[in-house]
Amino acid sequence: MKRSEEVDRTSAAIHRIVNARSLAIVGASDKPGKFGTLLTASQLAMGFAGPVYLVNPAGGEILGRRVYPSLLDLPEDPDLVYVAVPAPASLPILHACAQRRVQGVVMVASGFGEAGADGHGLEKEALRTAREGGFRIIGPNCFGIYNPRNRLTLTPGHDFSTVPGDVAFISQSGGYAAHVARLGKSLGLSFRAVVSYGNGADLEARDFLRYFGQDDGTGIIAGYLEGTRDGRGFLDALAAAAARKPVVIWKVGRGEAATRAVVSHTGSLAGAHPVWNGVLGRRGVFRVSGVEELLDVLVAWKHLGSNPGRRVLFVGGGGGLGAFAADLAEEEGLGLPPLDENAGAALRAMLRGAGAVAGNPLDIGAPLIPLPQFEAVMRAAAGNETTDVVLLDLAVNFAMLLGGLEGMVRVAETLGRVRAETGRPMAVVLYSRACDPDDLEPERVLRRMRSILHEGSVAVFPSLPRAVRALSRLTGDGYPR
Amino acid sequence: MKRSEEVDRTSAAIHRIVNARSLAIVGASDKPGKFGTLLTASQLAMGFAGPVYLVNPAGGEILGRRVYPSLLDLPEDPDLVYVAVPAPASLPILHACAQRRVQGVVMVASGFGEAGADGHGLEKEALRTAREGGFRIIGPNCFGIYNPRNRLTLTPGHDFSTVPGDVAFISQSGGYAAHVARLGKSLGLSFRAVVSYGNGADLEARDFLRYFGQDDGTGIIAGYLEGTRDGRGFLDALAAAAARKPVVIWKVGRGEAATRAVVSHTGSLAGAHPVWNGVLGRRGVFRVSGVEELLDVLVAWKHLGSNPGRRVLFVGGGGGLGAFAADLAEEEGLGLPPLDENAGAALRAMLRGAGAVAGNPLDIGAPLIPLPQFEAVMRAAAGNETTDVVLLDLAVNFAMLLGGLEGMVRVAETLGRVRAETGRPMAVVLYSRACDPDDLEPERVLRRMRSILHEGSVAVFPSLPRAVRALSRLTGDGYPR
Repeated sequence: MKRSEEVDRTSAAIHRIVNARSLAIVGASDKPGKFGTLLTASQLAMGFAGPVYLVNPAGGEILGRRVYPSLLDLPEDPDLVYVAVPAPASLPILHACAQRRVQGVVMVASGFGEAGADGHGLEKEALRTAREGGFRIIGPNCFGIYNPRNRLTLTPGHDFSTVPGDVAFISQSGGYAAHVARLGKSLGLSFRAVVSYGNGADLEARDFLRYFGQDDGTGIIAGYLEGTRDGRGFLDALAAAAARKPVVIWKVGRGEAATRAVVSHTGSLAGAHPVWNGVLGRRGVFRVSGVEELLDVLVAWKHLGSNPGRRVLFVGGGGGLGAFAADLAEEEGLGLPPLDENAGAALRAMLRGAGAVAGNPLDIGAPLIPLPQFEAVMRAAAGNETTDVVLLDLAVNFAMLLGGLEGMVRVAETLGRVRAETGRPMAVVLYSRACDPDDLEPERVLRRMRSILHEGSVAVFPSLPRAVRALSRLTGDGYPR
Repeated sequence: MKRSEEVDRTSAAIHRIVNARSLAIVGASDKPGKFGTLLTASQLAMGFAGPVYLVNPAGGEILGRRVYPSLLDLPEDPDLVYVAVPAPASLPILHACAQRRVQGVVMVASGFGEAGADGHGLEKEALRTAREGGFRIIGPNCFGIYNPRNRLTLTPGHDFSTVPGDVAFISQSGGYAAHVARLGKSLGLSFRAVVSYGNGADLEARDFLRYFGQDDGTGIIAGYLEGTRDGRGFLDALAAAAARKPVVIWKVGRGEAATRAVVSHTGSLAGAHPVWNGVLGRRGVFRVSGVEELLDVLVAWKHLGSNPGRRVLFVGGGGGLGAFAADLAEEEGLGLPPLDENAGAALRAMLRGAGAVAGNPLDIGAPLIPLPQFEAVMRAAAGNETTDVVLLDLAVNFAMLLGGLEGMVRVAETLGRVRAETGRPMAVVLYSRACDPDDLEPERVLRRMRSILHEGSVAVFPSLPRAVRALSRLTGDGYPR
């Protein structure tokens, strides 16, 4: 088989796995504290769009559903099998999978390649069985796949969004896979799929990059990587994917302690940091560090597009805010160019109040000014021609005192309107930290504001440093400064 | 007068101003949208521990209180006068202050030194009046003073904590002064005082550093600085203060845009960045960037002490968390040394479950494990001798699913107990972002957990990067690595 054919077959297999139409869970359980229990509950709550067969030698029923003693007892060959039994018990299951002609197997358990010589042997044997049985493996040591279209989910993912989207996230960490899917929902992100692939014994970064890179329904790919077995293949796949769509990469494992962590986590060789720097420093690749940055860049991309530009007009009510914004912009390689003549004159005319400064940073004099004036100022700011992105820090704790909670909702609506009518990319910093466990109204309003802003395609960030960093990362290392 | 006498007199004046026993507000108002209205409402709501005299030429009543037409009509000389009238109207008020023998004046309005030649002239005249009248000026272009002991407050500060503490914060930004006081309350910080001093035309950084440096009730000093008129004086005051207690400095104004922002904000000359780097890179000075870092360092200091050490034992349920923690530690100059023999053996015996790794990072296998096992693990971690600080990421979104909301409260209580009984400095990462404006229970529980942990002297941070950065900053630039 030629290499390109193999690549095509691998992508086709991933397609069938991610879009599975029938599912078996081996190790299904309802005993508290077991991973199989969480997995079963997650899949059933999510409501997989096809038959879900529960398998456990104990038989019986779980949540009113029949439990089959073995894969061999199922009435059909399931497209996908989740194997949630301990590592040493998994090989017989894989043999059964081979008999049943499945497309793919998600191997959940740890105790394979990351766990020393015995585990290595098990992993090798699992791979051989898969090859002979004509199916592919995701994992081992992973949480599975989330796809809102067929309502396949990972653990714990009972409450993930069922709205299909265009963000693909591939992750060697199950925890971060679940975290990104869950937080993504709260940030208004919708997913094409999230794949937790752990050790990547069979299918790994290279394969998922290729698949989602070619997938027309995928608008952006994000990845959490610990390492790869195939540096060359990864590089090729990354180049091909990045040529077609943005790829956000979070690569961990820089120092000695991190390398130790990565080896014991997924058995990956982290690789030398300078090598990765070279690989990731290319056009179309947005390099991030941390789950917060990763999510922030996805939010920024969704609302501001790829590479919106480095010229920011910062707006805030207070001189300290502006000074901090300018420092951050300097640090992150963004520019705060002076206003153009027209916008400058218009803003000077509008902002005659004490404390206001019609420049960039643009100080509107107070965290909140009367709404008609605020709207006019934001329109003029959006119209300024030296600006790629308008970034507004609402100083929301202070503004809420001035404008009241309902007033803040009006502010959010106003910003959405200005964004829609001017077409200017716009980002807002919203933070609040009230003290009292019984004073939750500000938090409720904050969440409402966030969803109003996101519906209006205004990107929302929880702090000024995170906003500036996201805008900077969004241009990618490979873009001109 | 000799220089040392002058310094003593200045400190004594600051002492009388911060601890004022009577207060006048000139420009008191109840008209919506005016700063004088916010100021009046804030002071009255806070309940200043002494007479508050409202002054406005219009006379009448505000909130049932008599309004005096002029300072000259007051029945006594107030210790402190807040002047909340526009800049051009302020000089006659200062003349009246000189007639009344006040200790100090807080000049709220902008439009002075930061606003060009006319403003400069006004500021100079104000200073001359103060010198002749024997009183000192805080401001102009500032929000005032918050002191929980006499319930003096700044704007908007009606709801600040009335619990006295040992954190002093001095700030050229009024917005950040209010922000730090308000967020500090929610983070369990208590203040000696917060001083917003704006342009620092008379009293400035140097003077407040000296005062709080010598003040026995002040345990730590934090400052937001844009610049200073007296570099030499600042340097001396910083050295003297830092020799006695930790000083946290956030200095803005690095680049060209930031310098522009700083000049138009408080008229300060930001000064060359390398010079500041030299000044701030000394033992006892903790340099931070941003209000988040500043607050995080204060929280870390409160619960972990100064310079707790750079050896961190990271604990989390999930390999991705550990890899990220190791990367962050490397970046920030913290160490994650291997476990000592005893703790290593004990933890290996306790953590036989799938996915757990008894190393550093210490992976407990899942975000939440049964509470008795969790407590035993945390005790063993606290007992490890290669550890200065135990840092735990609770992966709270995930853990809440496993343990339920009440279970999380038990976790917080357990950590407080382990901290108290082992004496080991301990920090916890708590984050959560639920989506639904109507699903506020997790937020309520999070706030309860945070206050339980802070009561147990476990430092809480909202993200892993912020936790690691705070631990790193807390050792200060001048401490050995």
